[in-house]
Amino acid sequence: MRAGIDQYATRVEGQPEIRDRTDPCVWGLPSTPELEGFAERGYLQRDGVISSATVEACLAEIDRIQVDPRLKGDERIIREERGTAVRSIFDIDVLSTVVREAISESGAEELARQILGSEVYIHQSRLNYKPGFQGGAFYWHSDFETWHAEDGMPTPRAVSASIALTRNEAYNGPLMIMPGSQRLFVQCVGKTPANYHRRSLVTTTPQIGVPSEDVVTEMWNSFGVDMLTGPAGSMTMFDSNVMHASGGNITPIPRANIFVVFNSVQNRLGQPFAAGATRPPYLARRG
Amino acid sequence: MRAGIDQYATRVEGQPEIRDRTDPCVWGLPSTPELEGFAERGYLQRDGVISSATVEACLAEIDRIQVDPRLKGDERIIREERGTAVRSIFDIDVLSTVVREAISESGAEELARQILGSEVYIHQSRLNYKPGFQGGAFYWHSDFETWHAEDGMPTPRAVSASIALTRNEAYNGPLMIMPGSQRLFVQCVGKTPANYHRRSLVTTTPQIGVPSEDVVTEMWNSFGVDMLTGPAGSMTMFDSNVMHASGGNITPIPRANIFVVFNSVQNRLGQPFAAGATRPPYLARRG
Repeated sequence: MRAGIDQYATRVEGQPEIRDRTDPCVWGLPSTPELEGFAERGYLQRDGVISSATVEACLAEIDRIQVDPRLKGDERIIREERGTAVRSIFDIDVLSTVVREAISESGAEELARQILGSEVYIHQSRLNYKPGFQGGAFYWHSDFETWHAEDGMPTPRAVSASIALTRNEAYNGPLMIMPGSQRLFVQCVGKTPANYHRRSLVTTTPQIGVPSEDVVTEMWNSFGVDMLTGPAGSMTMFDSNVMHASGGNITPIPRANIFVVFNSVQNRLGQPFAAGATRPPYLARRG
Repeated sequence: MRAGIDQYATRVEGQPEIRDRTDPCVWGLPSTPELEGFAERGYLQRDGVISSATVEACLAEIDRIQVDPRLKGDERIIREERGTAVRSIFDIDVLSTVVREAISESGAEELARQILGSEVYIHQSRLNYKPGFQGGAFYWHSDFETWHAEDGMPTPRAVSASIALTRNEAYNGPLMIMPGSQRLFVQCVGKTPANYHRRSLVTTTPQIGVPSEDVVTEMWNSFGVDMLTGPAGSMTMFDSNVMHASGGNITPIPRANIFVVFNSVQNRLGQPFAAGATRPPYLARRG
């Protein structure tokens, strides 16, 4: 934990505050209509950033990694509680040349540099796969709140790219973003338990690092919501502090995506702001 | 249970069949474009079937009935597991003059008569209320499969009206229908447990009376899906055998609707086709 004044203080006791974000959303200059839209809404979408062949190749990597004997027991491979099917593969840009090249093909890094106005590095990467019928909802949250509290990320000078490997439709639990919510920082209540990531990675109903229902309602009334649908091969890039969630999925349509977080080299991690120890590098690289 | 050949046999052992429905979907003549659409897709939608004032009056009935001392302990009032908040009120057309008049205002009964080609009676009615953040998903099923198996409804000569008391949007778990699926009858596997309705009314993940994931996938590939959104005051009428589900809701927007099932007087209930005893009248009136 760190001493001193923290404008993004969180995991507080008592009544949480909703604070204005003092840092910009787009740090780069000159701006473009696409970046102005990003600054306004906290996200942007591009179609066809990777080819169908690349999509197929990335999906095939799940099958390959799933049975790779060298990765048996590796904590970066999150498997089904029952069975050996893979749900998330962290460090995917390290573990898979195919996915690393797909990220390169997507143009996400150049876009991240434009938005963050500096060189960037990968803070976290993973490939997520959920078969049909099994996608639980994921509750409203700001990623930055967690990265600040648990990883020591100083400011919200980071962006996430979600590259779709399956189509995202309104019915199979797409990303939902409150557009504009990145301009506010919502304090969360409660002390971070030790080794909290071991629980938070597997639950879909986190208790820590999420705003209260009253606050979500207030934010909803201010900003409304956009459902981010799109074909396989499309990309959504979103601000690290935008309030977002994803719905459940009871359809047969699976959901898979590559998720890459780019952090500014001006924003390297320090000690956690509201947790006892740093998290493992596969969750938060230290640049 | 009943002996003899049953074209809608269900709750079977072993491999379930998908059978053609031999009964029509629209029994009335002459037809209209609206009814032809219903026959094709298994549902129709009308906007503004009840006024805003009626919507408000119906919502107020929840608060009234919730605290009515005469209804304390009444099994028709399904409350929260914790607390006393009301989730569903069965027999709502009997318990509330306001809601009975709203149903009358909606024109649902006349429409049901047109579709079913006969006089009709109310098989079941209820008012459903789910606050924001708390609506679980409800898995794919055909209502008729349950009514046939557990209530002794001979044929799918019944329709359901869902009258929206809140807006239904893609993001707050609307009704999802597989259009055209009413033309097939999907057998379900497994014996009906005694008093199964006591469990099936409170769970969102029923084990009995639902098709397998393989069958849902096959149906999905044949029919696709429509998400039924609409403003408060709109009505969806759907066939008793159409395959449908509803998604979960993690938004602050509550969901409330009046649900009324009309059955043809030519289709009165007999003994259950696949259960030991009949269910209570508030779930299945016997005409």
